[in-house]
Amino acid sequence: MAIRAAPAELDRAHAAMAGAVSALQVEICAALERADGAARFGTDAWRRPGGGGGVTRVLQDGAVFEKAGVNVSDVHGAVGNDLARRLGGEGETFAAAGLSIVVHPRSPLVPTAHANVRFLRRGDAAWYGGGADLTPYYLFDEDCRHFHAVLRRACERHGQPYGAHKRAADEYFFLRHRGEHRGVGGLFFDDLGGDLDATRAFCEEVARGFLDAYLPIVLRRKDLPYGERERRWQEVRRGRYVEFNLVWDRGTVFGLETSGRVESILMSLPPSVRWPYDLRPEPGSPEAALLDVLRAPRDWA
Amino acid sequence: MAIRAAPAELDRAHAAMAGAVSALQVEICAALERADGAARFGTDAWRRPGGGGGVTRVLQDGAVFEKAGVNVSDVHGAVGNDLARRLGGEGETFAAAGLSIVVHPRSPLVPTAHANVRFLRRGDAAWYGGGADLTPYYLFDEDCRHFHAVLRRACERHGQPYGAHKRAADEYFFLRHRGEHRGVGGLFFDDLGGDLDATRAFCEEVARGFLDAYLPIVLRRKDLPYGERERRWQEVRRGRYVEFNLVWDRGTVFGLETSGRVESILMSLPPSVRWPYDLRPEPGSPEAALLDVLRAPRDWA
Repeated sequence: MAIRAAPAELDRAHAAMAGAVSALQVEICAALERADGAARFGTDAWRRPGGGGGVTRVLQDGAVFEKAGVNVSDVHGAVGNDLARRLGGEGETFAAAGLSIVVHPRSPLVPTAHANVRFLRRGDAAWYGGGADLTPYYLFDEDCRHFHAVLRRACERHGQPYGAHKRAADEYFFLRHRGEHRGVGGLFFDDLGGDLDATRAFCEEVARGFLDAYLPIVLRRKDLPYGERERRWQEVRRGRYVEFNLVWDRGTVFGLETSGRVESILMSLPPSVRWPYDLRPEPGSPEAALLDVLRAPRDWA
Repeated sequence: MAIRAAPAELDRAHAAMAGAVSALQVEICAALERADGAARFGTDAWRRPGGGGGVTRVLQDGAVFEKAGVNVSDVHGAVGNDLARRLGGEGETFAAAGLSIVVHPRSPLVPTAHANVRFLRRGDAAWYGGGADLTPYYLFDEDCRHFHAVLRRACERHGQPYGAHKRAADEYFFLRHRGEHRGVGGLFFDDLGGDLDATRAFCEEVARGFLDAYLPIVLRRKDLPYGERERRWQEVRRGRYVEFNLVWDRGTVFGLETSGRVESILMSLPPSVRWPYDLRPEPGSPEAALLDVLRAPRDWA
């Protein structure tokens, strides 16, 4: 559902989104640093040869977060052949501004989490997109309920259909080759139309809401004890995260095929991962309980 | 360059290839077990719902090999929509018999290695395909020269063009998004025509030659001392192996998209992997020397 508007209106909306995601990046990095208490985000600014660029911020080897990335990009230019095949709409130029967050905690009892929002324009049409999702290694029902409840409230405040966006996330964050969902879902919206300012405000709420949805879970779980068994399971499940991002995630594949900045795109990959052959959790174990939920998504809020 | 032959001839060639790869699997697993000296291969037989099946053999946590897989499959059935898009030729039925080997050693001074051969038939046409390649973490010129020299001799004995197959490997085992080759190459041939028996004999030679090409390198390097630095570099480079297999390898993507047996396809993924953000080796270091070769393939034989 593209938004059609006068070029000057679309220019203004793009600039507003670029400003918003830059401000959000500062805010989100600061909040994650406070939650970590030890490590700081590094900053890499990069330029895109065809137009625009971005700022990639990554924190590594923290006390709470093993790897966290918060990226913004604001790019524009000619629609090349590769890009044209994948973008909807018409027109020879495109512009995009977005924010992408991926957090890989150290403790297997703290879920991995992701959010992103973006504004995309081609010619006279524009779309907003984004989402947020939670990937636990061990299931705490109250964490899933909390995450979804915050996202539901974010939707309700902006007249957005939580149910539809939740179902779209269940559909999108799915490893078809495994018959498993990546995690316990969240929101996903791919081409959101509507009023330019109101829809941007919703995107900002999703990004800011990510902190409210996720940080209380981090604080609740980060000091729980765990052992080698839980750590290995986390590293095995992180392998599924890699499989999803490299095989099925449209944003990652799009970026790699259109020569985006590789290290910014792949900051989403977990810091350490294992692929043992054909590992199956014991029936009745907490690991098996997680798999049950990944195979049959629940309604959490 | 498809091979066209009478159905009975193609049936016979298929059966011969299926028999050959089963025998090679036994031989190759035995040789790898001897080289390892500690761990043994497990065996999983599986059936394909649409017709045929395979035997997956994996060795894990050995003294020399951290993870090694030797798979055979012999499948047949109707050409579905997914498959039809990807297979060449015409006809409503297909049959395929093949062998695939991936070895991930424990020591970062021993290269990872891979080989595969396959017979593929659709309707009245058939193709052979396969290859072998070496992925070192640290560069020993004599190892690369040995690996390629064995493959060159295998080609020469069967009147196959080593130069063309070597260049095809350099082209195929390439991570476009990184501008890096996966390793130091080897052979790659995708649709080899010619005489049914002679071309199968070449495929057998490539698979058996893999042992001659690879095991002397394993024995030469397996007891060399290494430390945390070398191990981390190995785990980071193994990440590139994952990126290649999940993003660019046609066999892997084909298997995942056409619902092959996931654990057999993904046995190729390394046992432990790291993705630190934007790691760059020191100029002048052995790690940087490897990158130079991965960015500009050399002629080794």
